[in-house]
Amino acid sequence: MTFASDNWAGAAPEIIEALAHANEGAVPAYGGDALTKRVEARLCDLFERDCAVYFVATGGAANGLALSVLAPPYGMVLCHEESHVQMDECAGPEFLTGGAKLVPIAGAGGKLTAEAVQKTLAGYPHRPPHGSPPAVLSLTQGTECGTIYSVDEIKALCDAAHGAGLAVHMDGARFANALVATGASPAALTWMAGVDALSFGGTKNGCMAAEAVVFFDPAKARDFEFRRKRAGHLLSKMRFITAQFDAYLTDDLWLRLAAHANVMARRLSEGLAAIDGVEIAYPTEINEVFVCFPGDAAERLRANGAQFYPWVTPGDPAAGRMNRLIASFRTTEAEVDEFIAQVRAIVSS
Amino acid sequence: MTFASDNWAGAAPEIIEALAHANEGAVPAYGGDALTKRVEARLCDLFERDCAVYFVATGGAANGLALSVLAPPYGMVLCHEESHVQMDECAGPEFLTGGAKLVPIAGAGGKLTAEAVQKTLAGYPHRPPHGSPPAVLSLTQGTECGTIYSVDEIKALCDAAHGAGLAVHMDGARFANALVATGASPAALTWMAGVDALSFGGTKNGCMAAEAVVFFDPAKARDFEFRRKRAGHLLSKMRFITAQFDAYLTDDLWLRLAAHANVMARRLSEGLAAIDGVEIAYPTEINEVFVCFPGDAAERLRANGAQFYPWVTPGDPAAGRMNRLIASFRTTEAEVDEFIAQVRAIVSS
Amino acid sequence: MTFASDNWAGAAPEIIEALAHANEGAVPAYGGDALTKRVEARLCDLFERDCAVYFVATGGAANGLALSVLAPPYGMVLCHEESHVQMDECAGPEFLTGGAKLVPIAGAGGKLTAEAVQKTLAGYPHRPPHGSPPAVLSLTQGTECGTIYSVDEIKALCDAAHGAGLAVHMDGARFANALVATGASPAALTWMAGVDALSFGGTKNGCMAAEAVVFFDPAKARDFEFRRKRAGHLLSKMRFITAQFDAYLTDDLWLRLAAHANVMARRLSEGLAAIDGVEIAYPTEINEVFVCFPGDAAERLRANGAQFYPWVTPGDPAAGRMNRLIASFRTTEAEVDEFIAQVRAIVSS
Amino acid sequence: MTFASDNWAGAAPEIIEALAHANEGAVPAYGGDALTKRVEARLCDLFERDCAVYFVATGGAANGLALSVLAPPYGMVLCHEESHVQMDECAGPEFLTGGAKLVPIAGAGGKLTAEAVQKTLAGYPHRPPHGSPPAVLSLTQGTECGTIYSVDEIKALCDAAHGAGLAVHMDGARFANALVATGASPAALTWMAGVDALSFGGTKNGCMAAEAVVFFDPAKARDFEFRRKRAGHLLSKMRFITAQFDAYLTDDLWLRLAAHANVMARRLSEGLAAIDGVEIAYPTEINEVFVCFPGDAAERLRANGAQFYPWVTPGDPAAGRMNRLIASFRTTEAEVDEFIAQVRAIVSS
Repeated sequence: MTFASDNWAGAAPEIIEALAHANEGAVPAYGGDALTKRVEARLCDLFERDCAVYFVATGGAANGLALSVLAPPYGMVLCHEESHVQMDECAGPEFLTGGAKLVPIAGAGGKLTAEAVQKTLAGYPHRPPHGSPPAVLSLTQGTECGTIYSVDEIKALCDAAHGAGLAVHMDGARFANALVATGASPAALTWMAGVDALSFGGTKNGCMAAEAVVFFDPAKARDFEFRRKRAGHLLSKMRFITAQFDAYLTDDLWLRLAAHANVMARRLSEGLAAIDGVEIAYPTEINEVFVCFPGDAAERLRANGAQFYPWVTPGDPAAGRMNRLIASFRTTEAEVDEFIAQVRAIVSS
Repeated sequence: MTFASDNWAGAAPEIIEALAHANEGAVPAYGGDALTKRVEARLCDLFERDCAVYFVATGGAANGLALSVLAPPYGMVLCHEESHVQMDECAGPEFLTGGAKLVPIAGAGGKLTAEAVQKTLAGYPHRPPHGSPPAVLSLTQGTECGTIYSVDEIKALCDAAHGAGLAVHMDGARFANALVATGASPAALTWMAGVDALSFGGTKNGCMAAEAVVFFDPAKARDFEFRRKRAGHLLSKMRFITAQFDAYLTDDLWLRLAAHANVMARRLSEGLAAIDGVEIAYPTEINEVFVCFPGDAAERLRANGAQFYPWVTPGDPAAGRMNRLIASFRTTEAEVDEFIAQVRAIVSS
Repeated sequence: MTFASDNWAGAAPEIIEALAHANEGAVPAYGGDALTKRVEARLCDLFERDCAVYFVATGGAANGLALSVLAPPYGMVLCHEESHVQMDECAGPEFLTGGAKLVPIAGAGGKLTAEAVQKTLAGYPHRPPHGSPPAVLSLTQGTECGTIYSVDEIKALCDAAHGAGLAVHMDGARFANALVATGASPAALTWMAGVDALSFGGTKNGCMAAEAVVFFDPAKARDFEFRRKRAGHLLSKMRFITAQFDAYLTDDLWLRLAAHANVMARRLSEGLAAIDGVEIAYPTEINEVFVCFPGDAAERLRANGAQFYPWVTPGDPAAGRMNRLIASFRTTEAEVDEFIAQVRAIVSS
Repeated sequence: MTFASDNWAGAAPEIIEALAHANEGAVPAYGGDALTKRVEARLCDLFERDCAVYFVATGGAANGLALSVLAPPYGMVLCHEESHVQMDECAGPEFLTGGAKLVPIAGAGGKLTAEAVQKTLAGYPHRPPHGSPPAVLSLTQGTECGTIYSVDEIKALCDAAHGAGLAVHMDGARFANALVATGASPAALTWMAGVDALSFGGTKNGCMAAEAVVFFDPAKARDFEFRRKRAGHLLSKMRFITAQFDAYLTDDLWLRLAAHANVMARRLSEGLAAIDGVEIAYPTEINEVFVCFPGDAAERLRANGAQFYPWVTPGDPAAGRMNRLIASFRTTEAEVDEFIAQVRAIVSS
């Protein structure tokens, strides 16, 4: 009963198999190989336009390097106060951008609204060079609270950002989960709605270590390859990252893995919600369930071997009582049902 | 009728005269001169303890370099959401610290409370190395809203900070104004209450360009001289900064200048408060008055030649209608009274 | 006939197989898993002492992060003028250290001498805070010129460095190749000779993407985990890096791979040296051969499909005529012999 | 007998007087005042073209911020191995640029040649993104060795730089001394010869703390005002810097001060050269004399109260026996003659 993190799940078998296939023969290093070129083209196809695509091994690198290209080193990056760039990267965006200022914004369910963005911008009046000039709005899709933005919500946010001269970055560590939840196309959910650059995550959804940064206007990507290299993020044997994406995109593997995780989370969420005294903190829209257990139930569940993290954030609506449960491509119905049964037993005892 | 900024006021005549005296003879550069040593000793006397003292020319340098010594480059600096380090230094602290994360905290009248600090820290749970570790609490005394912290308030804030392992930095760009307003001693208002490092400002209070960073535990100052040098903040002809401080501290010049500015601000505040329709936004405790004028009065005052800035901040309680008026050592009663008369005339017309 | 780079070679089959095994079950992320702990212990055993061990995916990350822990952001890092940190990381060490100054030193065959280090230090007199204080000596073992340092040479260099207060970093991207070439033990070649931190490379020698930073005095490693995280170099599914090292160290795989590559390079070097008009630029001590071909032989070899890079460096002794040929674990005798035969045919034609 | 540094000399009386005049009245802060605008225009007139001009208080700030605008944070800055940016700013350029790589180049008498620049560039082959891309050539005029570049030499260097895609920065901390030594016009010595940006120094030549960064193509200056601000280098009471320049440029004060210092240095150099056993290390072309004294003469001179520094550099031709003597606007003939007499007495005793 492991609901600790999608990072605990290991990789999908197809991903591991792809590494063995990619290992054949000597090929140019640093992304000069044919497979990498092919995967770049696949991503352009997927997003229905010419993009500049760069591969890295971690989401922190993808986010920080993307922001470093979109923002000047003295610029302001607006983000949700519970976003990964703000809470979970040990001030990585500040470092990788060379000193940009992250401005956290509150919002229910991990989501920003165009109104909140505009209110924040209004509070930081234009006073060059005293104030850090607003440069980027960073959105997370799906959010850290397991919710998603609709296409219309993204459009409204991008309009607010562009209207004030900001570029829009999307942290898509769980982009696949959001995509299957919305039913929108990758293009509709990103550049068609106004997103300028996407951290397209593979790792949390069954890859081993594979993230792509996609710039929808290649002209805006100018510095990326230098910044990636100097930060130590250009993998020499690049084929082993791109091979993961190749398998990930083949036969809709990525969508199947994400759909499964989402379904498991929904099953978990619905099962828990039906138990008296258990509260679901946010709508379960992707593969994350945020839940408050009554009394000492959380401790007893952990003592039984269940694995999940307590969840504390600046905007915590549950006064420190929340827990985060994550389903992955590996989560089984049996695992979910057993957990629900345990909760029911503990709560009713 | 200039109430735009204490930076518009120029320097007190005593300060300028001191420069001419300091100019006699050849002396060692970079702070190796006798005058600099003497002024360092004067500051130790003033604060009633051995301190490490470093001189720079701007408040931004003082704040950013002080923080760079107190925080690791991946650490978190808590500050008020309207503080100078957050709003007015173009992401300077992020740069000078090498990437620290500034976390803005709301608080009425530009002031933080121990409770708000503790609540913020509780929202950033200890999860090394994912979360940026909290490193410094930065207070501003007097605040950007023209208010002051009492000794007890500072003690409570320092206790909260130290209890969580944070060092305390005080941005004292208007320290003199706060000091005369509280009546406390320099020691009582700083290290005795728990402050670890102070940006001791001279510029806004009648110096030309003179700021000192005072570390109350010299052992904590270790890196400062290297960081100051590499940031380009070690002045070669240092005597011209320390000469300003020498004059500043002589015959209580600094206290007289600050007291005058405070008195002028209070006169202004009381005069304006007596006019129907004029609202004072914050208590006028030092040399700053925040005021909302009815209708188009602000525009008409400016058209008459009055100089003052509109004031917009993230926590703005007045929906963009606030103006900031600052009194300086140069402000005269006549100037204040004329302004009040003009306001009265315009508002009643 | 691929002699372009050991990075072109892909991974040894044992490494790929290990990934599949490591993929079983859900385990803690970010290095909290049992395998990672076990591999840390194996590295301590290998080096015969308690070490602090950190895993990353690239050599650039290993070097830059190691240096960032050993040097203050304003410190000086001495290195060979042809070293990877100086020539091949796009100013990565400057970035990852937060601004340290790399001082390149010339030396025959890619090697530094204690005398050259001392002469360089003498040229940078101690003048705090004006001069950047010397902080680290970074050695490369085996060097970028395919040569190795003997244990005595390392000792002399470390003595020179420590005598002047510098820490010693060793870039061991080809540490395995150097180890089998010297016959010394890992401990003898590193901390026993005075090395403080080692970038222990796996990638170039048959891993997919696996590097370890080893601090021989764990107390000196203090900040590494925060610096790794904020730079985006903490892999979430860490087991896939440590699984590579687990296989790498099992049954002496790493030594067998390196020995093979070294033998192939020696065969290549000796074969080429026997051809009139072909010059070997440096002693072939590990898996790299630096060679000058007469006339247009290099172009004709490339036209025939042979893959190798021209090699140009600041200290180039061959006026731009040098080529670098690298053997890997995958290089075969047949490939070597065929290349030699082609060279012979072209040169004698 | 103070020949330690032009920074020991204090400020010219005209400069100090100008501060008092500039102090009249309240004026906009941060450079928005009329005097600052006027001085900007004077500098454009002086250089006979529209320039972007920015004022700072130190030479380290001028150099580092200029480079930060001309180079990307991963770019390469070529400079003389004895230049101030390399030797005397505690890795400031690396910090202020956000991580650029300084590549030191040897050259007799503190001077670079076009050939040496081209040879260096040839040693750093174009291999994006592995090698740091060459971005800037930084020249020092007059050099740290007291020599000057002729207009033709600057042209040749700028041609070499521009031909390879590099911008040219000139560190003109002693620009006035070089100007009067060459007899060229400010325009001829800078942009007409190809210089893109100049650190125009005032401090060493009789100002208190006044440096200007002049971009000859204003379009290239884009980011400067933000970078200056976030580094803490935007002085609030800017008029006190620009007032210095106003006086400096009035009635050719700057040229008179520099000419005097140069004449004193030449008198010193010629007097010393005439003494048996005393060697002048470099041609005395501006206000610096580099000299080797026989035996223990240097120690005896210092014991007599003479003030001058030993001079040690990476390219030291005199094996650590060199001393640097600097004349300033304040140096008198009597002082020079007395020193020469003392040397003569000590050496002949």
